[in-house]
Amino acid sequence: MSHAHPRLSLNQATIKYASFDEALALTADAGIRSIGLWREPVAEVGLAQAATRLTASGLRFSSLCRAGFFTAPEGPERRRAIDDNRRAIEETVTLAAAGADGSAAVLVLVAGALPEGSKDLAGARSRVQDAIAELVPDAIAAGVTLGVEPLHPLFAADRAVVSTLGQALDIAEQFPAEAVGAIVDTYHIWWDPQVLNQIARAAAGRRIASYQVCDWLTPLPADVLLGRGQPGEGHIDFAPMTRAVLDGGYTGDIEVEIFNQAIWDAPAAETVRRTIDAFAAAVPVDPAVAALAAADVEAPAVGVPALQV
Amino acid sequence: MSHAHPRLSLNQATIKYASFDEALALTADAGIRSIGLWREPVAEVGLAQAATRLTASGLRFSSLCRAGFFTAPEGPERRRAIDDNRRAIEETVTLAAAGADGSAAVLVLVAGALPEGSKDLAGARSRVQDAIAELVPDAIAAGVTLGVEPLHPLFAADRAVVSTLGQALDIAEQFPAEAVGAIVDTYHIWWDPQVLNQIARAAAGRRIASYQVCDWLTPLPADVLLGRGQPGEGHIDFAPMTRAVLDGGYTGDIEVEIFNQAIWDAPAAETVRRTIDAFAAAVPVDPAVAALAAADVEAPAVGVPALQV
Repeated sequence: MSHAHPRLSLNQATIKYASFDEALALTADAGIRSIGLWREPVAEVGLAQAATRLTASGLRFSSLCRAGFFTAPEGPERRRAIDDNRRAIEETVTLAAAGADGSAAVLVLVAGALPEGSKDLAGARSRVQDAIAELVPDAIAAGVTLGVEPLHPLFAADRAVVSTLGQALDIAEQFPAEAVGAIVDTYHIWWDPQVLNQIARAAAGRRIASYQVCDWLTPLPADVLLGRGQPGEGHIDFAPMTRAVLDGGYTGDIEVEIFNQAIWDAPAAETVRRTIDAFAAAVPVDPAVAALAAADVEAPAVGVPALQV
Repeated sequence: MSHAHPRLSLNQATIKYASFDEALALTADAGIRSIGLWREPVAEVGLAQAATRLTASGLRFSSLCRAGFFTAPEGPERRRAIDDNRRAIEETVTLAAAGADGSAAVLVLVAGALPEGSKDLAGARSRVQDAIAELVPDAIAAGVTLGVEPLHPLFAADRAVVSTLGQALDIAEQFPAEAVGAIVDTYHIWWDPQVLNQIARAAAGRRIASYQVCDWLTPLPADVLLGRGQPGEGHIDFAPMTRAVLDGGYTGDIEVEIFNQAIWDAPAAETVRRTIDAFAAAVPVDPAVAALAAADVEAPAVGVPALQV
């Protein structure tokens, strides 16, 4: 078994069936130093309790999943979405403050689907930008970065109308970089002929709010949401995108976020171990960090709170 | 029931289970004036017989599906693919000559998958361009336009590494416009934030080898190849893309090509009628052609060979 890379963050969705406490414990015990959290399990234990337990774990916090869902036209549904995003910004502040040093105050935004019965993709996309414009003052006041996540074009109709990193950056660049960035997730963007240029653009503008990795498996399962694999199990070459992210100056955590029924059904501790190994084998970090990781043999043994880098 | 639009072409795959002769007869009898053919059913009756029967049908020929599959590295598999593409070019010549006046000598090219076990997407993409470079002299000599078809990014790993219209045009523009164009298929590109600009680019360069329409349905079926619907049944707004294609000066046929198990299982004559109606309702042609279609009430009754526009 590899040592966990110091920049690896386990996104909680990868061990979906673990409780909040189990997720923290399994992550820290395996020597992983950071965790990405989801709002539903945080709400289940309560935000204040979640923050307390996160602090006790010694883990960094790398992002909160997820808010957004901005495509409804003006009306009560849209107002509820905006209000929910404001609550999510506050949750992000609390969790980032509770995480260990180096925690990121990043809130992941999923754009939302075409409204029921609508075919106005351009209109839906423009409403996403309008909603973010409403939230930017809150984000700035709170010190939170909104991470606009392009989702694979597979999901353009029924999940997220932001479909490419270039499009996410076109939105983000309307606002200050500290307030709005993009989520660079290999699963969603690996196919894009422009992906390396767009990562370079994102990095140059300090717009990479988070870097997330998982693999593209074929064939897609019947539930097309669940076609993700551990890095190395599928078709993605993680080297060029990772190099572009790191060479561009991204210094944050790298999350592994996997939706996969077989992985969810496996014992969570096994999934955590497999994630550490898969990440080490398939996601090449820059030479400096690689050297740091190699020198890391004296670093936390299992069960010891993680050191910070 | 609507009159068939004079520019509508029925792609044979839409009535997959009809024999070659049935496909010709059902298309012509319904007043559709053009047909897109597939190589397998053509081969089944034999190329010469297929050409003779196509001529007898009075139909235009709008495209031949499909060749390509260019991603194998140098070696016997790649040579077989190139040879097969040369045969497909000759088949296209024969069928275009056999179709009624206004037939297009267009061969649809599907790029091909990542080679088994390979994660070198950039390499596979570059081999697609290299293969087309080999075929361009044949295409020019034969008077055939190679239509590079970007497939939805959903298929980037296991079917076609050309994923956007922009990428297809980047390849096509390396060669003369009469030799290499792009297939503009709404199903594959509707999600692309750049789609209207890229269609305009294609039109300005006379690079639209064919315009194909069908709809994006959700949820995707278990066989993700078969998630296509009649225009109007899904999430796509056909107006902006169709306007961009026609305003850009594309004067060819517009194919309806649908892969859908329920549509295949329906009686083929019913599918042909539904296609005519769906096209009329959901695919707005430019005002001049719309006027022509409206004036078309004296045009072919069922069973009469179609007039040419």
